[in-house]
Amino acid sequence: MNPPFERVCIVGVGLLGASLGLALKRRHLAGHITGVGHRQSSLDVALERDAIDTASLDVAEGARDASLVVIATPASLVTSRLDILLATCPEAMVTDVASTKAAICEHAGATWPRPRRFVGSHPMAGSEKFGAAHGRPDLYEGAVCLVEQGTDLDSAARKAVVALWTAVGAEVVDVEPRAHDAMLACTSHIPHVVASAVATLAGRRGDIRKLVGNGFRDTTRIAGGRPEIWRDICLTNREAILAGLGEFMALLNDDFMAALRDGDGGKLERFFAEGGAARCKALAREGDE
Amino acid sequence: MNPPFERVCIVGVGLLGASLGLALKRRHLAGHITGVGHRQSSLDVALERDAIDTASLDVAEGARDASLVVIATPASLVTSRLDILLATCPEAMVTDVASTKAAICEHAGATWPRPRRFVGSHPMAGSEKFGAAHGRPDLYEGAVCLVEQGTDLDSAARKAVVALWTAVGAEVVDVEPRAHDAMLACTSHIPHVVASAVATLAGRRGDIRKLVGNGFRDTTRIAGGRPEIWRDICLTNREAILAGLGEFMALLNDDFMAALRDGDGGKLERFFAEGGAARCKALAREGDE
Repeated sequence: MNPPFERVCIVGVGLLGASLGLALKRRHLAGHITGVGHRQSSLDVALERDAIDTASLDVAEGARDASLVVIATPASLVTSRLDILLATCPEAMVTDVASTKAAICEHAGATWPRPRRFVGSHPMAGSEKFGAAHGRPDLYEGAVCLVEQGTDLDSAARKAVVALWTAVGAEVVDVEPRAHDAMLACTSHIPHVVASAVATLAGRRGDIRKLVGNGFRDTTRIAGGRPEIWRDICLTNREAILAGLGEFMALLNDDFMAALRDGDGGKLERFFAEGGAARCKALAREGDE
Repeated sequence: MNPPFERVCIVGVGLLGASLGLALKRRHLAGHITGVGHRQSSLDVALERDAIDTASLDVAEGARDASLVVIATPASLVTSRLDILLATCPEAMVTDVASTKAAICEHAGATWPRPRRFVGSHPMAGSEKFGAAHGRPDLYEGAVCLVEQGTDLDSAARKAVVALWTAVGAEVVDVEPRAHDAMLACTSHIPHVVASAVATLAGRRGDIRKLVGNGFRDTTRIAGGRPEIWRDICLTNREAILAGLGEFMALLNDDFMAALRDGDGGKLERFFAEGGAARCKALAREGDE
């Protein structure tokens, strides 16, 4: 029996790329996996860990014979990789793992022939850890993977991308790229920005080591992420983040600060109650309601 | 050998009050503990769990013979309890557990005789759980307890309060009430407000259950707290929270949003790097540096 994905190329062997390689190999889902990176040292780690079979420092070379290419670079590099892939292996089915989708999918929509063989993905998995050394074959198990939906997509490519994420244990949810970015701005990107600002605000107070509890620890956990990754995510989802942050500041100002200035206890209570209820609803499992 | 605290009265037998009772009894530190509550059902739970020895629905009655009174009510009720205690048991040493200190300590400073036998405390322990049923004898172990410092305090009362928290396993840190509130606004109260606003912002987007990851879960965890408790904390630390939130919004606006509007990647990276570094420093253990 042939493996479902004959020749796979993973461009970027960081946490997400290496974990995908490990997951595919652990499950015997890929015939051959080529890893592409811009640092030999990262490729060496991915090879040693058996996340990939062969390695290349060049995207065009590494992807040449691939039937499926997964771009697992930071968000800001995806469109340039798409340009190279379009020129060198137009027959391959391609997806990515970036946390923002509109700019990437619109770039592909404007440059790739229709029906489009690039279908955007956003597996919601990861951690503050990074690099192939932290790759885990179970990273995608139980995670949600958001997959682009749209009328211009090649249906075989889309099926393959859905099959890929399903095969490594993720639950695929269809999403339109602009809606994706508007939602993720509020559920992921803005929480990250806010966590950083909370940490900075407190840090500017001086030595606060004895004055932070579990609340601070949890609220700011994601502020420990990599600055360059979050810079890229923000730059590729600028409008939705600015719009959401505007709404967030209005919420703080009109719903909370105005109530506190007025000493309006009822309004303050409703402010906290709405937050608690929203959290509860957002984290509810299906069937809880 | 007599226990160090002969007759203790705990006013408010919620999570913090019941846990203190359990900790004192487990360690044989108290001769007799009276619990005071405004609901018989809460007192019954505290009695059943052996967190207190006797119960009363009346503060004046419950505290009459006490040598040490711990006010473990929500923050908004502390000053009225102080008024009652001053009138009924002026010889007792008194402390509290409220998360805000300036309003309470200044009220006591203005009404109690000097040297003052009320010394404010803020044990930084707790969780989203509440009520005597969730009381734990180890709640204060390893926690920091901030204890009021100032020139007007009765030194025997202050020593007793420090001894109390040390005896149940907390590390006592001295703090001046106004400085306490300004710091805690940034390390605890504003993180809470912000977590609620983050949850609300996302919740207003509709059904986001498939679109929230661990980042959202952690950032908003404390938004699950009790609205009325946080209403009270905010109302009793109004100025520091408003000042800190003003600074927080300026940080978002000037440091982050301006950089994002300008597409200034370097500035965005510095924004995230400062947050990450501040968090790291705030959570560092002594000796890490």
